[in-house]
Amino acid sequence: MGGDLGLEATVPASVNILVSHPDTKLVLVGDEQQVHDKLRKLGAHNDGRITVRHASEVVSMEEAPQSALRKKKDSSMRVAIDLIKDGRADACVSAGNTGALMAIARFVLRTIPGIDRPAICSTLPRMDGCTHMLDLGANVDSPPEILLQFGIMGSQLIDCMVGNSRPSVGLLNIGVEETKGSEIIKAAAELFRQSDLNYTGFVEADEIYLGDTDLVVCDGVLGNVALKASEGVAKMFMSVMREEFHRSVLHRGSGLIAKPVLDVVKRRLDPRLYNGASLLGLQGSVVKSHGGTDAVGFRNAIEVALQEARNELVDKITQSFP
Amino acid sequence: MGGDLGLEATVPASVNILVSHPDTKLVLVGDEQQVHDKLRKLGAHNDGRITVRHASEVVSMEEAPQSALRKKKDSSMRVAIDLIKDGRADACVSAGNTGALMAIARFVLRTIPGIDRPAICSTLPRMDGCTHMLDLGANVDSPPEILLQFGIMGSQLIDCMVGNSRPSVGLLNIGVEETKGSEIIKAAAELFRQSDLNYTGFVEADEIYLGDTDLVVCDGVLGNVALKASEGVAKMFMSVMREEFHRSVLHRGSGLIAKPVLDVVKRRLDPRLYNGASLLGLQGSVVKSHGGTDAVGFRNAIEVALQEARNELVDKITQSFP
Repeated sequence: MGGDLGLEATVPASVNILVSHPDTKLVLVGDEQQVHDKLRKLGAHNDGRITVRHASEVVSMEEAPQSALRKKKDSSMRVAIDLIKDGRADACVSAGNTGALMAIARFVLRTIPGIDRPAICSTLPRMDGCTHMLDLGANVDSPPEILLQFGIMGSQLIDCMVGNSRPSVGLLNIGVEETKGSEIIKAAAELFRQSDLNYTGFVEADEIYLGDTDLVVCDGVLGNVALKASEGVAKMFMSVMREEFHRSVLHRGSGLIAKPVLDVVKRRLDPRLYNGASLLGLQGSVVKSHGGTDAVGFRNAIEVALQEARNELVDKITQSFP
Repeated sequence: MGGDLGLEATVPASVNILVSHPDTKLVLVGDEQQVHDKLRKLGAHNDGRITVRHASEVVSMEEAPQSALRKKKDSSMRVAIDLIKDGRADACVSAGNTGALMAIARFVLRTIPGIDRPAICSTLPRMDGCTHMLDLGANVDSPPEILLQFGIMGSQLIDCMVGNSRPSVGLLNIGVEETKGSEIIKAAAELFRQSDLNYTGFVEADEIYLGDTDLVVCDGVLGNVALKASEGVAKMFMSVMREEFHRSVLHRGSGLIAKPVLDVVKRRLDPRLYNGASLLGLQGSVVKSHGGTDAVGFRNAIEVALQEARNELVDKITQSFP
């Protein structure tokens, strides 16, 4: 029950998701009293589909993953992941500390046999839909074989999420020519070409947003840099817009007139709609919500977890690594 | 005289720069006849400050660097760089093929003693000014010592361009904590801490646009990915805006009313204002203009070259590597 907004985001999102998914059951893990209070305020304390499971500890956003793993055995994060391990939940969603979530999930659930390192996969907007991308920061120095595992896991995720069983897969690089890039990326390209994946070649980072590759595969450092640079530009753009539309009374007036259109633009590129990153490669579905998101964003992360569980993503990935 | 717009961008930019820099002399290298025609159209064919130097060949945008280096000895790119080598020009600006420009410049001018690899450095906009960043794609797999060289060269460039002799320097990474990132980046951080640079620590990619670090240092793959991802997001943003402001007559109307403000936003973030990337580490000033830019952008790239030459950047970098 973490994230910057805490229960203000997670509990309303949980109540809301049950409206569109009436056959779903949720276990809310956190401070029992606080969760119950929040549910009561929302009139959902008697909903039989919601169970509250107490956890006495919290992993802070700054806590080192290894410390969270060793010392916080009754944190909401740990308790939630234990529920999957014990077969009492099909998936877990957390808005907490990413490193701690990965460390705990990896320790408790273990990776799927044949998979060396779990990876983080999420969607990013593009003009006519979305691009999936991994790894977004769980791994550094990923060798070619690991990148291939990312490609296989990501393709399975796309099949689960949007029913595309032959997604196009590209490798992120600094040019599309075969001679470009590091030795690792060139060796990875060779592995991808020989694989059963629908590999379409190298992809430059602008093509994440402007191209038509369904899955972009890269090392976690590259993925994280691409994602953060994008966030930075988008935020700067919004700040400059805000500043200019508030510069004078005249500007404020034209801003009011343009607002309905600008709101549509904002809605189309709303990062909350793309919230919910899958931790792939574990023996259980774990979804990471952005720490700063609200109920709309957290609801989307639950939606990702639901799809993974319903379409048995973990089983499918397991079968891809016989 | 390359780039997508060719002489349409380069010649007007050259004529224009002489207005604000009356004591500057320019050598335009390319097809003599075409350059003269273009100068005549602009009424500048009798300007004694402009010389035209014929070059019979052109390096295409797709040409492999090694082929351009070996086979195109009379290309405009090669002739222009030869002019620096022969002491007949203080700097060269090109909007052509980046790889070929780097290969030719490196072969003809050689690197400064003590510098292993040249790097590409450019500015990116931020709320209250600009951030310099390198390497933007000339190098892959840069070890810690090379990253330190980038830091030294970039700091000297900032001193030349904006007169800041103690720019803050950060290393691009996936987190600001010292434990984050690859072994190479951690080793680089140690070298930076021990150096004379004003090193301020790790920087996440969103801080390129939102932070206050003057110089962000990284390997060319990371720099290229950060830059291209940013371009992709910005273009998608503009496309979505255009689409929504053209969706109906009403939207078009509100677009017209908001246009003066949106134009200011566009001007503030205009990539042409940030055009002109320095190839650092060579025994001569070479500036790369974006291939797709127009006269405004190319003029800016000439401005960068002028500043480098006037402030003797190459000498200063040479002195930093005794």
